Amino acid sequence: MTSIAMIEAAAERLQGHARVTPLLSSPFLDEIAGRRVLVKAECLQHTGSFKFRGGWAAVSALPREALARGVIAYSSGNHAQGVAAAARAHGAPAVIVMPADAPKLKIDNTRALGADVVLYDRAGGESREAVGASHAEARGLTLIKPYDEPEVIAGQGTCGLEIAAQAAAEGVAEGDVLINCGGGGLSSGVALALAARAPGLRVRPVEPEGFDDVARSLAAGEIRSNPAPSGSICDAILTPAPGEITFPIMQAHCGAGLVVTEDQAMQAMALAFLRLKIVLEPGGAASLAAALFHADAIDGDAVIAVVTGGNVDPELFREALTRYG
Amino acid sequence: MTSIAMIEAAAERLQGHARVTPLLSSPFLDEIAGRRVLVKAECLQHTGSFKFRGGWAAVSALPREALARGVIAYSSGNHAQGVAAAARAHGAPAVIVMPADAPKLKIDNTRALGADVVLYDRAGGESREAVGASHAEARGLTLIKPYDEPEVIAGQGTCGLEIAAQAAAEGVAEGDVLINCGGGGLSSGVALALAARAPGLRVRPVEPEGFDDVARSLAAGEIRSNPAPSGSICDAILTPAPGEITFPIMQAHCGAGLVVTEDQAMQAMALAFLRLKIVLEPGGAASLAAALFHADAIDGDAVIAVVTGGNVDPELFREALTRYG
Repeated sequence: MTSIAMIEAAAERLQGHARVTPLLSSPFLDEIAGRRVLVKAECLQHTGSFKFRGGWAAVSALPREALARGVIAYSSGNHAQGVAAAARAHGAPAVIVMPADAPKLKIDNTRALGADVVLYDRAGGESREAVGASHAEARGLTLIKPYDEPEVIAGQGTCGLEIAAQAAAEGVAEGDVLINCGGGGLSSGVALALAARAPGLRVRPVEPEGFDDVARSLAAGEIRSNPAPSGSICDAILTPAPGEITFPIMQAHCGAGLVVTEDQAMQAMALAFLRLKIVLEPGGAASLAAALFHADAIDGDAVIAVVTGGNVDPELFREALTRYG
Repeated sequence: MTSIAMIEAAAERLQGHARVTPLLSSPFLDEIAGRRVLVKAECLQHTGSFKFRGGWAAVSALPREALARGVIAYSSGNHAQGVAAAARAHGAPAVIVMPADAPKLKIDNTRALGADVVLYDRAGGESREAVGASHAEARGLTLIKPYDEPEVIAGQGTCGLEIAAQAAAEGVAEGDVLINCGGGGLSSGVALALAARAPGLRVRPVEPEGFDDVARSLAAGEIRSNPAPSGSICDAILTPAPGEITFPIMQAHCGAGLVVTEDQAMQAMALAFLRLKIVLEPGGAASLAAALFHADAIDGDAVIAVVTGGNVDPELFREALTRYG
């Protein structure tokens, strides 16, 4: 079980390796939202998403022999790149299991970071867990799960330590912290960090319409699954269900989930381009979309939106600008 | 004459108002350049460019009565927004003289920041200096020049203080610091800061082909002008000639200028999108283009590129992605 002590230990291991990402803002966004909007720009993290934190935390915690054998991860792309980059820096071989329909940029980047990429057919119903486990056994690799793994949660939690300090510097002690949520690694890690360091800030998971397993699970008090395994442009945050480790943490510490449409995520991408000068992928922009377009569902004078990734294919980004730029 | 003491005083006035922008990097960019590339992301500054620093430094240095009467600035758009935002925060009226062919985004933003925008015909040969001076006299406004003004240079120099500290943290004590250069406010301010705080780092101004007045002036040892007043997509860094105050500073402290093509600037925009997840305008990306595509003209194991602004119309950004994304 991840603790604040584990998160702080992860922060020490990440020091000088992960970036302290800035908290951005724009009066134009404040006006749309009707309150102050502070944007934690994790798209500026190494490999273009917060996943580098969890990847580094998990890889750096491995004993020397395990590093020498190597690691394996399954991921739609951002965890893949985070683990690949962390493994390369530690001199460890990395095998990454990715869906064949993941964004081309994410597959290419993961290969360029030196990983051995294995593709599987997500739409055809292949389970990435099954594919990953078989490789891990055959080659003696250590499996680094994308979210249901205490060291990964601790790594993502380091983002929460930064939020606590940066929000305090901005005079914000209370309010909602909107986080794009797949399996719940970032949401649960940040929630644990804030519970210890900034208890007036409350994590609220944000998901795309049709893939709101976490929102429904929190409302039901037990784990609920999504009907479809894929089919949203918010590829980074599509998971079948909340994790068995992350869900109880989210139950204990998170507020109700929020749900945005794909169009709202695209519009938030265009506004982040115009007003913050950052590049977001749809699944990285859902939190900002919630801050801007679901203001009635949010409490407080200020809201913090964690924009979690920017690994978007140029074609899709152009489309967001064409429609909303 | 701007001194390191003035720059440090400006840094104190900017504290908590200007953003400390991050120094970004990507192994993919290092590979293209053949050396480490550190990117100082001033596009993430308030109003989307470094100009907020100089605007704030100049406005915050004014006496109360001058603030009450108001300020005036002439600018192709980034200085306009910087001064408008700083004036609004100080409760001072602002008149901004802008070329009618400036990017629409810059004109719209300047108006939205509460400034009274006066357009003039740049292509037709109207002098913005003349237009600005007449308004300033009629209304008792204080003219805040875009670069040939000691407090503005001091404000831009605060970027140099950050570079000195951030480069040291990255273990970089020697190398070229590439800076997009119009009139030379940022180049001279940063050069003064580095001369005092990181003397192994040397500023090199970067300009677009056909508008290389600073490079030619530095080579000639005296001020040279550009043949045309406009006609490059790098609108942010088109000025007739280096400033009378900035040029001697650049002569004393800067290395030779570098010149990039418009296509190289567009390609650098696409690479910054892909690899750094930041949005650059062409004139903000020239420095990165020089780092990536003029490696032979640069010395050292590492190079720092200051990417100076991100206020680009969506249509032009889409074009960069279509051609190079």
